Amino acid sequence: MALQSYNPKINQAFGEILAESTLGEIDLKVSQSKHAFETWSVSSGQQRAEFLEALAAELESHRESLVQRADQETALGLPRLNGELDRTCFQLRRFAQIALSGQAFKYFVDPAVAGAPPVGHPALLKLKIPLGPIAVFAASNFPFAFSVLGGDTASALAAGCTVVVKGHPAHPQLTVDIMTLIDTVQRKLGLPGVITLVQGQSFEIGYHLIEHPFIAAGAFTGSTRGGAALQAKANARSRPIPFYGELGSVNPIIALPDGISTHEKEMASTLAGSISLGCGQFCTSPGVVILIDEAKNIQSNDLFVFELTSSLKEQKPHAMLTSGIRSAFNFGVEQFLKFGAHPLVYELSDSIEPRPFLASVSATDFIAHEQLRDEVFGPACLIVRSASIAQTKEVLESIGGSLTVTIWGAEKKSESTVGILRSAMSIAGRVLFKGVPTGVAVSAGQQHGGPWPSSTTPMTTSVGDDAMDRFLRPVALQDYPDWVDQSKGYAI
Amino acid sequence: MALQSYNPKINQAFGEILAESTLGEIDLKVSQSKHAFETWSVSSGQQRAEFLEALAAELESHRESLVQRADQETALGLPRLNGELDRTCFQLRRFAQIALSGQAFKYFVDPAVAGAPPVGHPALLKLKIPLGPIAVFAASNFPFAFSVLGGDTASALAAGCTVVVKGHPAHPQLTVDIMTLIDTVQRKLGLPGVITLVQGQSFEIGYHLIEHPFIAAGAFTGSTRGGAALQAKANARSRPIPFYGELGSVNPIIALPDGISTHEKEMASTLAGSISLGCGQFCTSPGVVILIDEAKNIQSNDLFVFELTSSLKEQKPHAMLTSGIRSAFNFGVEQFLKFGAHPLVYELSDSIEPRPFLASVSATDFIAHEQLRDEVFGPACLIVRSASIAQTKEVLESIGGSLTVTIWGAEKKSESTVGILRSAMSIAGRVLFKGVPTGVAVSAGQQHGGPWPSSTTPMTTSVGDDAMDRFLRPVALQDYPDWVDQSKGYAI
Repeated sequence: MALQSYNPKINQAFGEILAESTLGEIDLKVSQSKHAFETWSVSSGQQRAEFLEALAAELESHRESLVQRADQETALGLPRLNGELDRTCFQLRRFAQIALSGQAFKYFVDPAVAGAPPVGHPALLKLKIPLGPIAVFAASNFPFAFSVLGGDTASALAAGCTVVVKGHPAHPQLTVDIMTLIDTVQRKLGLPGVITLVQGQSFEIGYHLIEHPFIAAGAFTGSTRGGAALQAKANARSRPIPFYGELGSVNPIIALPDGISTHEKEMASTLAGSISLGCGQFCTSPGVVILIDEAKNIQSNDLFVFELTSSLKEQKPHAMLTSGIRSAFNFGVEQFLKFGAHPLVYELSDSIEPRPFLASVSATDFIAHEQLRDEVFGPACLIVRSASIAQTKEVLESIGGSLTVTIWGAEKKSESTVGILRSAMSIAGRVLFKGVPTGVAVSAGQQHGGPWPSSTTPMTTSVGDDAMDRFLRPVALQDYPDWVDQSKGYAI
Repeated sequence: MALQSYNPKINQAFGEILAESTLGEIDLKVSQSKHAFETWSVSSGQQRAEFLEALAAELESHRESLVQRADQETALGLPRLNGELDRTCFQLRRFAQIALSGQAFKYFVDPAVAGAPPVGHPALLKLKIPLGPIAVFAASNFPFAFSVLGGDTASALAAGCTVVVKGHPAHPQLTVDIMTLIDTVQRKLGLPGVITLVQGQSFEIGYHLIEHPFIAAGAFTGSTRGGAALQAKANARSRPIPFYGELGSVNPIIALPDGISTHEKEMASTLAGSISLGCGQFCTSPGVVILIDEAKNIQSNDLFVFELTSSLKEQKPHAMLTSGIRSAFNFGVEQFLKFGAHPLVYELSDSIEPRPFLASVSATDFIAHEQLRDEVFGPACLIVRSASIAQTKEVLESIGGSLTVTIWGAEKKSESTVGILRSAMSIAGRVLFKGVPTGVAVSAGQQHGGPWPSSTTPMTTSVGDDAMDRFLRPVALQDYPDWVDQSKGYAI
C-alpha cells in the first residue's frame, strides 16, 4: 500500500507518493538499530544529552517549515502545532537533563552480611540496563510530541536504548522531513542508526516490526484496538517482550454536589472548550461528565447542562485528522443514541469539520450498556445523571480504566470526597481536582497511564520523568569484583 | 478431581481426601477478598506489620508439626524444610519492617510552576495505591517460602493488597494446616478474608481465579508452561491485568579461561552439590555449564569434567516432589541424548529417587538445537564446550532468558570480562561472580526475574524488598486540596 499525504481541510490527497517499507527494509532498519545499540547502550549521560539537545535544536531551527507541513497533513492549526513543537523540544531537553544527571546509571549497593541465611547474604549491587532496540509507534494526533521525536523516543534514548520508529501514515511527509533532520544530527555526531524509521499503512508493517527478534520492547500511542492488536503480537512472540500502549480513555469528570454551584456558566464554557479542543482528538478529552443530582443542586445541574449545551453549540471544531477518524466519529455518536442517550447538541453532518455532540443519559442506563462507555474520538461528550455518591462510584467502576478522572467540589475532606477520590484512583492514573483533563504536564510527578483500556501497563507512565524507567531493566550483581564498582556514573 | 496427599518417599497417596474448590466457592473467596480489600487497602503500616509478624510467630510456634507434614508431602527433608520455614518467617518479618517504614505510602511532591506550558505546570503529587485482591499461585518446590505464606503473599500484604491463594496440589494438607493458622490470626486481629484459599488440581480452578473480574493481578511461581497458560488467560480478560510469573530457567555458569584452573576438584564438588541440592528442584538450579577451551586451559577443563563426573556420581538425590515431575525428568534427559548430548553420568532408572545426569555437548550443537536449551527440572546438567568468548556470547544469546548467569574467573577487568558481563546481563536478572546460583538472598538489592522464559515481567522481582512494587500502582493527583497532603504516612 503506497502512502500519500492527506489534507484534511480540503479532504484531498496531495504531494509525493511514498512507498511503504518492505519487510526486508524493516529487517535492515532493525539490524542497524541493534548494531547501534552496542555502542549507544554504553554511552555516557553526556553523550545522550548532547544528542537529545542537538535534536531539539534541529527541530527548532526548522520550526516554520515543519509546522507548515504538519498543518497541511493534520489541520491542527499553527498555534497548536507551534505549541506542540515547543513541548517536544522541552521533552527532548528534559530527558537530556535526566540523562546528564546520571539517573539511568544509578545503582544500589547492598553490602554482604555475615552469617548463615536467611540473615546472612552475599554482597549485591542492583543496577539497571537498557533493554535494546525499541519499536516506537507514532500517533496521528500529536505529529510532534507523540511521533518520531516524541516522549517515547526521548525517554528511550535517555535510557540508552536505540529506537526504530514506525511513522504514522496520517503525516508521512512530516515524518520524512523529521527523519532527514535526525540523520543530519546522527551524521554530525557519528551516531548512525540510533534512530531509524519505517513507514507504512498496512498492519503487516507494525506486526513485522514488533515481532522482530531484535526488538526488545514496543511503545505505542493510539487506539485501544490498534494497541491491543500489537500487544497480542508482542505476547505471542516465542520470547514475549514488554509492550507499553497508551490507548483510549473517556476521562470522566465528576461534579460533586458542591462542584459547580454558582459557577455554572463559567465552568460550562471551560468544559465546552476542552471537549472541542483540537477537535476532541486528545487521549485526555473529557467524554463523560457525571452530575450528582441532590435536591439542593438539581437546579444548578440543569442550569449547567443548559449552559454547556449553549456553549458547545457555539464551538466550531476544525477538520479531523483523517477521513477514517471522521467516519468513526459519526458511527460512535449514532451508537450513543441507539443505546438510549438523549441528544442535546446533535447536528448530523458529513462535513470534514464535525459538529460537537452532547447527550444525556441516566447512570442506570450508562451502567447497563457498555456501548455508552466506549471512547468516541472527537468532540463528543455524554452527561451522566447520577442519583448519589454510591451510584457515582458504580459509574466509575463500570468505566473500569481511564487516563484521568476529574473531581469538582472535593475541596473539603468528608466521607463522600474521600470515597470518591478512592474510587477515582482505583480506575485512573491521574486525578484532577480542578479544571479539565486536556493538557498533560511534562513533569517529574506526572502519571500518564491507567488501568485497561487506557493503557496496557498502568504501572508505568508514558509522560514525565518516570517514562525512562520503561526502558531499563533491573539486574543484581552478586559478589561482584572491584572493577564493577568503579563504573559509577557510566554504563558498564 | 479430588485432592489427596502423596508421599514421594514411598510413592503412595495417603491421608484425607480433600474436595477441590467449586467455581462457586472460588467466587465466594474472591468476594470475601474484595470486601476485605476495602479496609485492608487503607490500613496503616503498623496494622500491616502486626499481621505479618503474627503470621510469622504462628508459623514458628507450629514449626514441628508443619515441617513434619511438609516432609511427608514433599520429601525435601527436615533440615531443608526447617531452613525454609526460617526463611519464610524472615520474609514475613522483613515485609513487616518495610510496611512499618511507610515505604508503601511514600509520595513525591512536584510543586506547581507558574507560567504557560510546557514550562509552567500545575501541582502534582505522585503516590502509589494497592492494586486490589491478588491471586497467588503456590509452587510445589517451596512448600513454605513460595506457597501460602511465601514471598508473593508477604509482599502483596505489605502493599495493602488482599490475597487469594491457589494452594499447590502437591502439598494440599500442609496448605490446609497453614490456612487454619492464618484463620486463627485473622480472627484474633479482626481481619477476616485478607488471606483466603482455594485448592484444586484442575486447570479450571486456576483459570477461573485469574479470570475473576475482582482479581487485580496474578503472582505465580512454577513451570514455563503453567505460567504461560495463566498469563494468556490474564491477557485475554476483557480487562487484562498484570501477571507476575516466575518460570523456568537453565542458569548457565560460564567458566572463563582463568575460572577454574588449580581449583578443579573443589569447584566440581561444589557444583555437584548445587546440581543435586533438593534433587535439583530449584528455579536457580545450574542446568548449563559453559567451558571455554583455549590451549592454556583445555587440560584444566577436562580435569574439571572428570572431577564433576566423579562427584556427581556420588550424589544421592532424594525422591522428587511428584510422580509427574519424576517422569518429566526422564523425558527431559532422553531429549538431551536424542539431540546429540554425550552422556557422562547417566544411569537410567524408574526409581522415585532419580540418579543425577550429566552430559556434554559442543557449543555448535547447543546453539543448533533448542531442545538442548529446555529446562529439565531435577538434578541434570549439560556441559557446553565453547571455542571462544565470542561463541560463549552466542550460547548465552541462544538461551535468551535466565534468572541467573554465573561467571567464574572475571576478577580482572578486560575486554573479555566486560563483554561477557554485558552478555550475561542482557539475558539474566542476577549475575554471580562466585559460587553457584542456588540460594536466593531475601535482601534489599535482590533481583529474581529475568527475560523470558525465566519470568513474564523481568522489570520486577519476586524476591527481595522491591517485590512489593509489583502490587502498587502510581497515581498522580493534580491541583490536590490541602487535606490530601495531610495523609502522609497513611493511606488516603
